[in-house]
Amino acid sequence: MKVSDLGEFGLIDLLAKIAPQGGPEHRILVGIGDDAAAWRGDDSTVLATTDAMVEGVHFATGTPWWELGWKSLAVNLSDIAAMGGMPGYALVNLSLPGGTEVEDVTQLYRGMAELANRFDVAIVGGNITAAPVIMIAIAVIGKGLKEGLLRRSAAVPGVRIAVTGYLGSAAAGLRVLSGKLTVPPQAAACLKKAHLQPQPRIPEGQALVRRGVRAAIDISDGLVADLGHVCAASKVGAAVRVNKVPVHPLVIESFGKDALNLALTGGEDYELLFTASERIIDDVKAALGADCPVTEIGEITSGTGVVLLGGDGRTYHIDGPGWDHFQKGA
Amino acid sequence: MKVSDLGEFGLIDLLAKIAPQGGPEHRILVGIGDDAAAWRGDDSTVLATTDAMVEGVHFATGTPWWELGWKSLAVNLSDIAAMGGMPGYALVNLSLPGGTEVEDVTQLYRGMAELANRFDVAIVGGNITAAPVIMIAIAVIGKGLKEGLLRRSAAVPGVRIAVTGYLGSAAAGLRVLSGKLTVPPQAAACLKKAHLQPQPRIPEGQALVRRGVRAAIDISDGLVADLGHVCAASKVGAAVRVNKVPVHPLVIESFGKDALNLALTGGEDYELLFTASERIIDDVKAALGADCPVTEIGEITSGTGVVLLGGDGRTYHIDGPGWDHFQKGA
Repeated sequence: MKVSDLGEFGLIDLLAKIAPQGGPEHRILVGIGDDAAAWRGDDSTVLATTDAMVEGVHFATGTPWWELGWKSLAVNLSDIAAMGGMPGYALVNLSLPGGTEVEDVTQLYRGMAELANRFDVAIVGGNITAAPVIMIAIAVIGKGLKEGLLRRSAAVPGVRIAVTGYLGSAAAGLRVLSGKLTVPPQAAACLKKAHLQPQPRIPEGQALVRRGVRAAIDISDGLVADLGHVCAASKVGAAVRVNKVPVHPLVIESFGKDALNLALTGGEDYELLFTASERIIDDVKAALGADCPVTEIGEITSGTGVVLLGGDGRTYHIDGPGWDHFQKGA
Repeated sequence: MKVSDLGEFGLIDLLAKIAPQGGPEHRILVGIGDDAAAWRGDDSTVLATTDAMVEGVHFATGTPWWELGWKSLAVNLSDIAAMGGMPGYALVNLSLPGGTEVEDVTQLYRGMAELANRFDVAIVGGNITAAPVIMIAIAVIGKGLKEGLLRRSAAVPGVRIAVTGYLGSAAAGLRVLSGKLTVPPQAAACLKKAHLQPQPRIPEGQALVRRGVRAAIDISDGLVADLGHVCAASKVGAAVRVNKVPVHPLVIESFGKDALNLALTGGEDYELLFTASERIIDDVKAALGADCPVTEIGEITSGTGVVLLGGDGRTYHIDGPGWDHFQKGA
């Protein structure tokens, strides 16, 4: 059945059944189906973020719907992770061509619901509209921890720069998905999953705050570009030792000498980049354990912008710093 | 200059200067430019809503940008009004073709900022992305009053149905804008403004709550359709006396016998429809005064659905109940 056969309100009723409604701790007063959602507030810090995914810009036509639902929510949860917070409520703005299959839209919601349930996020409302292309704009509202927030603007000269996990696999997965590269099936599956189903670092962001980290960003535009955002917001510079950057092993295996460039500029890994003293980084490593490796990759300086240093100590050059929607994407 | 010349981050910097940042009562900790916005919460009821406007669906290509900015925020504020709440914070998701003029986008933000300032709403964050069509998806977060909320689900049999203001002018304005009807210049200007620059009934919604009203909706899809949403949510029926419906005088003047149909089904008036006892409605009338007329148009019944009654007491028939994005729009 097409969305245009079911109609806007039939579709809302159907999706409302899939959307997680949260437990008693969400203190929801009004959920899906009124003019606005309502819940009981408290004196925590409120966090709010929004991010969108557009067909033909963020994803290709034909991207699996379940993964699309997962990823549209994941990129928002990652923003909450990058503040060291706890997500709580989501509002989903869905724009769809009338010819979209209802089954596809329910798959989209199932992917979203799977991730929402994992982090106890209630989907409390939204909006559905017709549009010439698929567009999913989600707003997530959550809480900051009482220990504080992770801000882009809190980096200071002299501290170390570190990242969680491995980089480059999401960008590599995109190249595999677009047929630009053939890799062995197992590696292909893993890289594609890195692109389609990123894991927001929610518990890790909270662990950072609890160990005293105060500056962080999630890597969505690319390591160099996102570190550049931190430098601009903090009015500092950064020196990155490129041979320290934790390139994902499968990316090295599949992309050889291009692997480092993918890790530096590819984006969409949704790992956390943060700055802290060596002592705090050691505490974070101990807290996160083997499940989430943490790697030091450089230092914050009193300069401006990001300087990349090769193994020989000389400046290392890359093609472009990362994603800009209008200069590269449009 | 085109958006693609300035780039995503240059555009964000420019728009951040136009976006109202709120006063001390907003208790903002982190505004535009980090991964999420943050502010100090309190124990009020949190209200959250989202609504989108899509080029070619909600507005024609060539719609003035200032008005587009105003209206995209207005439709969201109207949802907060329909809960009897107070808006506080907005997140703006903007999708634009790369060839859009930067000056047009700043006009969009100025229109939004004008309305935001009027109701002391801080634009605390958002997202900008490339897209084949213009799409503006806004989420607004606010507070409910301590007296309670206006819910769609709170109508009970026996109470009266009332509306604020006059109906039909926004739909009439759309017809004038699309060149389907020629009316005298002064009337045309007024009707076009009703369509392009709706006034969210924020103080009126709060006045309703304070006088004891508990059920309301804003008229976005059309009087009959939106009353139908109230009936469905409250599991009641409604009888509307069509000759009581306050059709806008300019609509009667310009549209003759079509005027009533526009008022019943046109939508986008963003007036409030509410249900309450006669005594409460009288209190509301006294509180709102001449600036905002309130008209009783019928009664809530123990039946189902909306029945329209003509002056002769017989059922009155209309063409279609109102807006459905996929059944009429797509």
